[in-house]
Amino acid sequence: MNIRLVLRQIGKLLVVLAGGVLVLAAFSTYEMWQGEAFEREALEAFLITAAVAVASGSILWYLCRQHHAHMGRREATLLVVLSWFVGGLVCALPFWLWDRLVPASFPEHGYRTFIRCLFESISGLTTCGATVLTDIESMPRSILLWRATTHWIGGLGIVVLFVAVLPSLGAAGKRIFLTESTGLTPEGLRPHVRETARILWLLYLGLTLAQTILLMIAGMSLFDAVCHTFATLATGGFSTRNASIAAYNSWSIDMVVIVFMLLGGVNFALYYRLLQGQFRAVLRDTELRWYLGLLLGGAAVIAISLMIAGRPITTIDGVETPPTVPEAARHAMFTLTSMQTTTGFCNADYEQWPVLARAIILFLSFVGSCGGSTGSGVKVIRIVIAFKTVLNEVEREFRPSVVRPLKIGNAVVEVPVRLTAIAMVVSGVALLALGALALLMIEPDPRMDFTTAASAALVNLLNVGPGLGAVGPAFNYGWMSDGSLSVLIPLMILGRLEIFAVLALFTRRYWGNH
Amino acid sequence: MNIRLVLRQIGKLLVVLAGGVLVLAAFSTYEMWQGEAFEREALEAFLITAAVAVASGSILWYLCRQHHAHMGRREATLLVVLSWFVGGLVCALPFWLWDRLVPASFPEHGYRTFIRCLFESISGLTTCGATVLTDIESMPRSILLWRATTHWIGGLGIVVLFVAVLPSLGAAGKRIFLTESTGLTPEGLRPHVRETARILWLLYLGLTLAQTILLMIAGMSLFDAVCHTFATLATGGFSTRNASIAAYNSWSIDMVVIVFMLLGGVNFALYYRLLQGQFRAVLRDTELRWYLGLLLGGAAVIAISLMIAGRPITTIDGVETPPTVPEAARHAMFTLTSMQTTTGFCNADYEQWPVLARAIILFLSFVGSCGGSTGSGVKVIRIVIAFKTVLNEVEREFRPSVVRPLKIGNAVVEVPVRLTAIAMVVSGVALLALGALALLMIEPDPRMDFTTAASAALVNLLNVGPGLGAVGPAFNYGWMSDGSLSVLIPLMILGRLEIFAVLALFTRRYWGNH
Repeated sequence: MNIRLVLRQIGKLLVVLAGGVLVLAAFSTYEMWQGEAFEREALEAFLITAAVAVASGSILWYLCRQHHAHMGRREATLLVVLSWFVGGLVCALPFWLWDRLVPASFPEHGYRTFIRCLFESISGLTTCGATVLTDIESMPRSILLWRATTHWIGGLGIVVLFVAVLPSLGAAGKRIFLTESTGLTPEGLRPHVRETARILWLLYLGLTLAQTILLMIAGMSLFDAVCHTFATLATGGFSTRNASIAAYNSWSIDMVVIVFMLLGGVNFALYYRLLQGQFRAVLRDTELRWYLGLLLGGAAVIAISLMIAGRPITTIDGVETPPTVPEAARHAMFTLTSMQTTTGFCNADYEQWPVLARAIILFLSFVGSCGGSTGSGVKVIRIVIAFKTVLNEVEREFRPSVVRPLKIGNAVVEVPVRLTAIAMVVSGVALLALGALALLMIEPDPRMDFTTAASAALVNLLNVGPGLGAVGPAFNYGWMSDGSLSVLIPLMILGRLEIFAVLALFTRRYWGNH
Repeated sequence: MNIRLVLRQIGKLLVVLAGGVLVLAAFSTYEMWQGEAFEREALEAFLITAAVAVASGSILWYLCRQHHAHMGRREATLLVVLSWFVGGLVCALPFWLWDRLVPASFPEHGYRTFIRCLFESISGLTTCGATVLTDIESMPRSILLWRATTHWIGGLGIVVLFVAVLPSLGAAGKRIFLTESTGLTPEGLRPHVRETARILWLLYLGLTLAQTILLMIAGMSLFDAVCHTFATLATGGFSTRNASIAAYNSWSIDMVVIVFMLLGGVNFALYYRLLQGQFRAVLRDTELRWYLGLLLGGAAVIAISLMIAGRPITTIDGVETPPTVPEAARHAMFTLTSMQTTTGFCNADYEQWPVLARAIILFLSFVGSCGGSTGSGVKVIRIVIAFKTVLNEVEREFRPSVVRPLKIGNAVVEVPVRLTAIAMVVSGVALLALGALALLMIEPDPRMDFTTAASAALVNLLNVGPGLGAVGPAFNYGWMSDGSLSVLIPLMILGRLEIFAVLALFTRRYWGNH
């Protein structure tokens, strides 16, 4: 294990993050100049954070400068997990420092302890979108923009990691992260990590600009449009309003957000292919077809069940609409897209919807989005593999001698890949059970009942954000104790990095000499 | 598909069952002669059932007598599933006929519709032990004995199927049912199905006699001892008392029941080995060690958590005992053994226990007992394989080139076996989710909340019996509608026959020509 090589990269990361924080400091200065309250404290918080990040980053970089050894698989694993954790620590600092600096007269807001701030920043970087803020609208705009920015950084980071970096690590990286089984990554993409990363970054930037402009056309202010775009493309879910997207109650905003959430949940390698003009290959992609099929089919069933139930659809802002065909379709599509892509923007209060609708929402957020997207969840491709594997096993019950290859599109999925996919589903379920149990044991607040604990563990592991019960769409995580939040933080990181990378660090063999 | 061959075997089964029903008719006559009420109706019900079974059985046997073809794997699969289903229909008849015949003055009891009677008999044959009876003690003794007998028949049937019949079907039977991976089935056991079945049957009879005598020494009447023995060895859980085992509140009865539930949960092939004098091989058996380790370790943690909580332990009969070391150990051991072996006898009201204790109980009932036992659940050996597979996959995250064989004891578990084991865990979880959803959608009674639905689906799929919420240890299934019970019936059969055998019948390829 070449730990210095890893630390040098962490040093670089800290310096880059400091740059991002300084941009926010500039925005904060502008807001202060406009006479906004509590922005001075935010500016100070950003400046201190930037100073700390630059100082610690440069020291690490300098101390470990001599190590130019090859980065192996173990180093890469440690680097990825450490990046999200250290990134979380740095991104939490502005929240926490601002709370220390702001006068005691400022109303209760949620950033009172460091664990709460860390929960918020990890939720941002993993694009989970669960928040401890009780009154979002009372917060200074620069803090809200920083919150949204953590989503944007995390979303870009995950796409670059899964589409550019991991495939370059050879067969193992591809196997674990299933990029191989999808047959998606074009051959030419792999060797040129830097070039691929550059293209992805430009793509991400282009989509960001497009959505910002469209949201402004739909009626949002520039500030709201930027914040919501950051949260949409990264499939994060932080909003600048207490009532999330429901605050706007606008058809056109809903439609823009639906489309871009959907785009965020698509494998970014497909966009690369589109740029190369391979339209037919993209349209024939198995995972994309299942993703859209599940989403549209699920939304249709939810819309019909809303119409059959006949009760008015209530937004979390309290606005009631009769379940006409267009309204039912709009709310079914918005909520399901938001949950399946693991964005977590809220609009209607789906807790009041029929059981079948809620079950589809929960199941499809478990399924999640495509591999290589900013979205999370188990990933459509793994569910397809697990489903086909079970079907294969059932057939072997009565035809044991038939060995039928499992195919995704035209590519045969090898047994080791199937084993990995299905083992990930099993370990996800196990983590879920452990997480829910820990929450029930640790949390003193009586709101933590069975439903709340189970759904909180689920939506944090899957990086969705809102769940059921006391963490439902109309609530937040502000009422939880530091103990409960400390349970949810590792769950978010485990889910974002697809479990095995994080678990590996806790095995003896990983650290042993060999 | 040679369907006539299958039907001939079903004909034989019907005639054998009719023999069992006639024994009960004799018991009913004796009870009538003793002046017991409502036994005349029971006698009539048994005689009609026997007549129907003999008639339909002989007709099937006669019509299909000419088919002496070889029984292939597809025929065997169909025969096994049909046996449990047809057996359930026949065993339900006495309950249903008795209800038709008994005067309307008889108080509400639970057997009012045929679905309810079918639920009871399938619950008996699958050794699940969930009951729709609201007042067990008001029922005639012959009906209660018939209920217990369905357990005994089902338990014997499953042991003979998994230890004698399936291993004789060759590699596939062994692979699907994991008898191969355990390396348990002695070579000499395989070819002689009849001989093995005879030994198992004698073993089962011997254990039955031993427990009956011990229960009588511990203070039970002959009738209670026989009924509880039938329910213990088969890991079923039907009792003759409303308060189940708690009604006796006896240390010695608890101890006898604990020991024989534990014995019922052990692979019966191990008893065969013991008879052959292979003591050391049995002691070194991996599955047995994990089974006992989980059970004793879990019970220790539960006992400690009961002592720390410090609240009195309440039996479902309402008796309170302070949580001293011996009482905590007794109740922890009884409840955990009952749930992990999927017997489902109740003693203490574990719903009032600390969260950690309830979580261990639920998790270990999911794990279940050993393969080749009368118990159900996912089976210890599969959990061990799934657990080791996940560990292996985590290691491959940082050492992709290392291919480490997965070992159980000294035997290497091949990848296809691992795939089957882990696919079964996944399909179990999927069935659970579908079952809970169906219950929530179908049941009009408000008692069917999320916890109740989820735990009812779980404990019926795993053949445990009591669950949480409105199906907790102090309640029964009598309040559910026929619709909900119709959801639970297939779940019990799916769980008993380890899912894939039943699902196979619903695939097109199974029925196709090939």
